[in-house]
Amino acid sequence: MVRKNKKITAAILVIGNEILSGRTKDQNVSYLASWLNNTLGIKLSEVQIIPDIEKKIIKSILALSKNYDYVLTTGGIGPTHDDITSQSVSKAFKKKYTYHEEAYRILKNYYGNKNFNDPRKKMAKMPKGAKLIYNPSSAAPGFKIKNVICLPGVPSILQSMVINLKKYLKPGLKIHSLTISTETIESNIAKELEKIQKKYKKSVEIGSYPFFRLGKIGVSIVLRSSKKIGLQSCHKAIIKMLKKKNVNIFKVV
Amino acid sequence: MVRKNKKITAAILVIGNEILSGRTKDQNVSYLASWLNNTLGIKLSEVQIIPDIEKKIIKSILALSKNYDYVLTTGGIGPTHDDITSQSVSKAFKKKYTYHEEAYRILKNYYGNKNFNDPRKKMAKMPKGAKLIYNPSSAAPGFKIKNVICLPGVPSILQSMVINLKKYLKPGLKIHSLTISTETIESNIAKELEKIQKKYKKSVEIGSYPFFRLGKIGVSIVLRSSKKIGLQSCHKAIIKMLKKKNVNIFKVV
Repeated sequence: MVRKNKKITAAILVIGNEILSGRTKDQNVSYLASWLNNTLGIKLSEVQIIPDIEKKIIKSILALSKNYDYVLTTGGIGPTHDDITSQSVSKAFKKKYTYHEEAYRILKNYYGNKNFNDPRKKMAKMPKGAKLIYNPSSAAPGFKIKNVICLPGVPSILQSMVINLKKYLKPGLKIHSLTISTETIESNIAKELEKIQKKYKKSVEIGSYPFFRLGKIGVSIVLRSSKKIGLQSCHKAIIKMLKKKNVNIFKVV
Repeated sequence: MVRKNKKITAAILVIGNEILSGRTKDQNVSYLASWLNNTLGIKLSEVQIIPDIEKKIIKSILALSKNYDYVLTTGGIGPTHDDITSQSVSKAFKKKYTYHEEAYRILKNYYGNKNFNDPRKKMAKMPKGAKLIYNPSSAAPGFKIKNVICLPGVPSILQSMVINLKKYLKPGLKIHSLTISTETIESNIAKELEKIQKKYKKSVEIGSYPFFRLGKIGVSIVLRSSKKIGLQSCHKAIIKMLKKKNVNIFKVV
């Protein structure tokens, strides 16, 4: 599934009615987006947020795992009736949904024999052949099966686990980025930026984002590329254009 | 497209490389999720976040507009080269991508004849037959074509426009909800909650969400239903169960 010498891509599948109802603000997408892109050089290419409905989970898992190198799911691996990620992923890949011996031991040890009830035992059930992703905060592990990685929904727990997930992910090309903050409005530089983007279409991705802060109106021009030389050359072209148009540059980072 | 006497559903399509790269935290999904569910009784059923790539936008627009009553897009309707939502939606529906006369007038009036350059004119281009959604903060309107509604990505601008969008959306069934905050852990009540969910599976959606705050561990049990009587009966059953298990109830809202 993981292609050599190519960009490595990932998708995130957020599973949870509470996000769609507006009750809970998702915090995992932006966290994982930064971690994948900046730490691992893995390009996050799509996100889906879907409800706790088995057939929707199966459909999304199959489509995303086919289209991207990795799929990270969040949510739905807890002990309650609305936690159906593990059994849905098992069904998607036609794997037996069964106790993972090590996960069972970890949880039994964590809760103690007396308190290790059925709902807690459920957290040790996953697709046969899954590899564990250890959970240093609340014991219940995540898992990886094929190119799908299942993580919990609680942000603090998820964040404590990424260190144990890293070994399962092949890092991609390091993406370099540069942000030029300018004192202008988008439509003043749109034509010129488009020309420069056309020239660098194969090597650099140029984004343009208006901002309003501290009483100032501006545009952040963001360059992203796996090629340092291309990035620098594109950067020079943009600075030259901005100077020519007498656009004030706040800062470059 | 909008079905009578049924639940009304919506999807959100977030279009923007900046969200996927982790540079920008999306704020529109949680805002629109609350607004659709709580103000309009429209059930948000799916969210997709995709990059600024025409063929991906077209594919998502076609799939989502077929599966849901409404599709709300955010992002990509500004003046720069990476703003390609309007032309992509035009292509998806095989509509001519052309100037909307009223949008052109609004923008010309806003910028003044002298400053009304090509990138600004671009913001008046949309699929032929689109209806405008007025923008009280920065003039450039959003639009509705078929069951797809295109909104900007800047949260403050988007939020200023929803009042003008409301008239295009048929309200759905009012969803009532109740949250019971308890001092327990999920696995202690999971079996009992599952039984109650099975009993009320046709009328009430029960969610269970662990929380850790102010030094306390707890579970919020959230009930959602369009039927007040069902909700109250389900609520009673849960309170009875919690009392039987000696679970402390913090509050019910």
